[in-house]
Amino acid sequence: MSYSSIARDGDLAQLVGLSHKHIILTLKAGGELQTHRGVIKHDNLIGSNWGTQVFSHTGAPFFLLQPSLADILNELPRTTQILYPKDIGYILVTMGIAPGQRVMEAGTGSGSVTIALATAVGEHGKVISYEQKPDVQNLARKNIERVGLTSRVEFKQRDIREGFDETDVDAFFLDVQHPQEYIPQVRAALKPGGFFSTIIPTATQAEKILPVLKKNLFAFVEVCEILLRYYKSDPTHFRPVDRMVAHTGYLLFARKIEPSDDPRGRELANEVSIQDNT
Amino acid sequence: MSYSSIARDGDLAQLVGLSHKHIILTLKAGGELQTHRGVIKHDNLIGSNWGTQVFSHTGAPFFLLQPSLADILNELPRTTQILYPKDIGYILVTMGIAPGQRVMEAGTGSGSVTIALATAVGEHGKVISYEQKPDVQNLARKNIERVGLTSRVEFKQRDIREGFDETDVDAFFLDVQHPQEYIPQVRAALKPGGFFSTIIPTATQAEKILPVLKKNLFAFVEVCEILLRYYKSDPTHFRPVDRMVAHTGYLLFARKIEPSDDPRGRELANEVSIQDNT
Amino acid sequence: MSYSSIARDGDLAQLVGLSHKHIILTLKAGGELQTHRGVIKHDNLIGSNWGTQVFSHTGAPFFLLQPSLADILNELPRTTQILYPKDIGYILVTMGIAPGQRVMEAGTGSGSVTIALATAVGEHGKVISYEQKPDVQNLARKNIERVGLTSRVEFKQRDIREGFDETDVDAFFLDVQHPQEYIPQVRAALKPGGFFSTIIPTATQAEKILPVLKKNLFAFVEVCEILLRYYKSDPTHFRPVDRMVAHTGYLLFARKIEPSDDPRGRELANEVSIQDNT
Amino acid sequence: MSYSSIARDGDLAQLVGLSHKHIILTLKAGGELQTHRGVIKHDNLIGSNWGTQVFSHTGAPFFLLQPSLADILNELPRTTQILYPKDIGYILVTMGIAPGQRVMEAGTGSGSVTIALATAVGEHGKVISYEQKPDVQNLARKNIERVGLTSRVEFKQRDIREGFDETDVDAFFLDVQHPQEYIPQVRAALKPGGFFSTIIPTATQAEKILPVLKKNLFAFVEVCEILLRYYKSDPTHFRPVDRMVAHTGYLLFARKIEPSDDPRGRELANEVSIQDNT
Repeated sequence: MSYSSIARDGDLAQLVGLSHKHIILTLKAGGELQTHRGVIKHDNLIGSNWGTQVFSHTGAPFFLLQPSLADILNELPRTTQILYPKDIGYILVTMGIAPGQRVMEAGTGSGSVTIALATAVGEHGKVISYEQKPDVQNLARKNIERVGLTSRVEFKQRDIREGFDETDVDAFFLDVQHPQEYIPQVRAALKPGGFFSTIIPTATQAEKILPVLKKNLFAFVEVCEILLRYYKSDPTHFRPVDRMVAHTGYLLFARKIEPSDDPRGRELANEVSIQDNT
Repeated sequence: MSYSSIARDGDLAQLVGLSHKHIILTLKAGGELQTHRGVIKHDNLIGSNWGTQVFSHTGAPFFLLQPSLADILNELPRTTQILYPKDIGYILVTMGIAPGQRVMEAGTGSGSVTIALATAVGEHGKVISYEQKPDVQNLARKNIERVGLTSRVEFKQRDIREGFDETDVDAFFLDVQHPQEYIPQVRAALKPGGFFSTIIPTATQAEKILPVLKKNLFAFVEVCEILLRYYKSDPTHFRPVDRMVAHTGYLLFARKIEPSDDPRGRELANEVSIQDNT
Repeated sequence: MSYSSIARDGDLAQLVGLSHKHIILTLKAGGELQTHRGVIKHDNLIGSNWGTQVFSHTGAPFFLLQPSLADILNELPRTTQILYPKDIGYILVTMGIAPGQRVMEAGTGSGSVTIALATAVGEHGKVISYEQKPDVQNLARKNIERVGLTSRVEFKQRDIREGFDETDVDAFFLDVQHPQEYIPQVRAALKPGGFFSTIIPTATQAEKILPVLKKNLFAFVEVCEILLRYYKSDPTHFRPVDRMVAHTGYLLFARKIEPSDDPRGRELANEVSIQDNT
Repeated sequence: MSYSSIARDGDLAQLVGLSHKHIILTLKAGGELQTHRGVIKHDNLIGSNWGTQVFSHTGAPFFLLQPSLADILNELPRTTQILYPKDIGYILVTMGIAPGQRVMEAGTGSGSVTIALATAVGEHGKVISYEQKPDVQNLARKNIERVGLTSRVEFKQRDIREGFDETDVDAFFLDVQHPQEYIPQVRAALKPGGFFSTIIPTATQAEKILPVLKKNLFAFVEVCEILLRYYKSDPTHFRPVDRMVAHTGYLLFARKIEPSDDPRGRELANEVSIQDNT
């Protein structure tokens, strides 16, 4: 993210036009952007203040803004369902993702979580991302490159049933069908005490993964859902908007633990395996 | 955050005992922790794997874990209402907080947002945090020091009506009573296009701040609330827990814009000032 | 509602066809129903068991069912926003609407609450319904007639600013713009201790009506919202549906009280006027 | 429910005292009510206007009110979990419960649904309520008698595995453990096209009952949950209260259908059995 008040060559930028159409682009000297409302020369953007209005050759107005992580996620080209900012924000905070960490995910999908993780771990961190389908991985690569995060991400293509090359990673986010089938592999990749998270579309699947986590010595299990309700920002008619997203998935969090053989520890080990957050 | 699989001298750690009592501490060679269930010597923790069980001198079991940002926030000593992880995660993602940024907040309160911002901006970033009350600021200082983030935070004590010393910051989070009274000051501190966010307890206050934001040339206003619902993690009785937090506050986001004098831009400027996210 | 297991001449019926298209009709010997999938003779329905399948002259299948109040409301021809079953059910129970009562509403709108009230008060009860606009009232009349409840409803057309003819009604439901302007009139119509309810689209309006209720000696105020979330009824993929209605309105309930002049009663009178249901 | 503006001998009444303590009682000439704040003679209540303030012999103030169905349910003496007004209101409206119907439930529990059904079917309707445990049934009998609805309710004590005596009832509400085990018995009691509803605490149980309903020719299945959020009724600080009930149960509705042998009907029969309300 640029410190500068001014848009510079190489910056990631966002143009917002009429009807809130958002376009995300990387500024390049000499470049041109074709929009439905005319052409915009990058050279007219480079050197402008962020937050200012710019115009296409036909006179259509746009605001020039730096995109937030949420903006980037909302505009991401996708073939698969992506995670929403409401879920990603809670995942980052609950898994303690921070600059400098080495974290993993599978599968990559369209790369929404990849981008979020790569942003949060910073330039000294690393994201290792597994995906089985080459075409899906290719789209994710393009998405990550487009936002300038390629150097922080290592892509691997594999059926993750075979396991992962890595060990001792700080955190692992799993977003695959039948996640309950890969828990031993995930455990092998995580460092002791490492953070695990997954998103699960159905209650039926949550019921399947919970005993597998317990059996594989994951504890401090937390299952939740995040609901986001927007409001109309009209000060004389303040009220929620009419409709909302009712469900994206159940979020599940757990920690890799190593219970002691000491019989004194059994009580605690049992307790954490049935934590219910009531 | 430590990369290591092993707890080391100086690491921030978390001990979780029976009944899920959480204790957050910094490991120091020679140190001792007094708990309700006996004494634990830091030297018995240093060198242990994260995720393992340890025992107090009376034999009470604990798990040794690295705390996530959410863990830290949930255990924060407080005199004021703190923000919840559900809100903080969404704020970080929607404001695009990232390593290396220079961001501000007022008021500091117990320091929960300060810690979240300081974690997200990393060691090359900076958080400037204003607070009017010296005693509140002192608690926040201790909280930030306790989690090892002091070098990233600059504290200032002031009635923010007088304005801020800084300009061109990437993002500003405002959490004060009557936030509508400080919008020009916040605008002066933000860089062009900068991100603004606040949390507002009542609908009445949301109605008051919305026209002030418009008047001070903030746009792309988004108002929302985040609801978090926990589930019992029992695979044979999967269901939501009985009670939940129903309200922490309305989250409000906006961008500092600089509309053009060009009459062609008027349409867009009007539109964004009444965005309603429907 | 018919007791019978068999559809009879004069019964209110519902035909549900492919894609869950619902048609509500009153069975009449010799009648014919034109559908997009062919003609159905009423005589083929009369005498059939409820719950059976019937076929149009082109062979399109339908189920023959008695409609519930919710079914009727969901299919109601409307020019105005109607209330949803989720809100109406809670209103009926919270206002204690029961067979034999004499209740009022203003405005009638498309008649959804009218139908609900007329159903609940039964054949020995009475609903008096005021509406200012003749064309809106005409639609409501047709809707009430269509479901066979005309004898229980008395329609009046008036600007309710002039007040109501009735006194001592058991309950009053107000659904008009600017409800805060008609509270003295509503009070005059209600019996002592009578139930008041209204639905309010915006927080801004709720703030306006609350002090007016207090001033006009309404107490035991309860403000709430009801959210309905549907689930996919697939036993192997049990989960909420993707989207939901986020807002229909704030429901507000209050009782007409008559505080004593006795100074000993002041404490209670003050208390109930600021009830907050926490 | 009394039409009168005046409390009369034999009326069901509610006294609301300081701290919103609610007491529900039946007025009897010569009776006395002992409260924590002194004695109130029924003769001082009989003949008073509803909504007025009355005083105990120690001078403690109370409001005299008629209780709504919601008030009665909220104050019901209970040994088991009772249903909340938010759920009961939606059940009544969705099952189309109306004056004059003959409806059933099992088990009776503390009688909360019994009271709601008996209120809604009126004096010409009938509720048949099965309960296996004699002591639970006895409490329900007392609760129903206390609110004056005994003549509308027929209690039966039985293990419902043996089936029900009744046939052709309009609607059946099932609230027992393992509801999936009694669906054929419920079907035998319902009239063709009859309404079925149950409340299910866990997702796991919902998954179990759904295929049983399909197999037993119930269709038009609807699964949902109702959330109720209260607001502080302070016009200058309008906002949701801090905490709420997050879960009471999943509500499930279905209709008893009788598919035709005609092959043309197969498409519709299949469709309704997988309805998902999306």
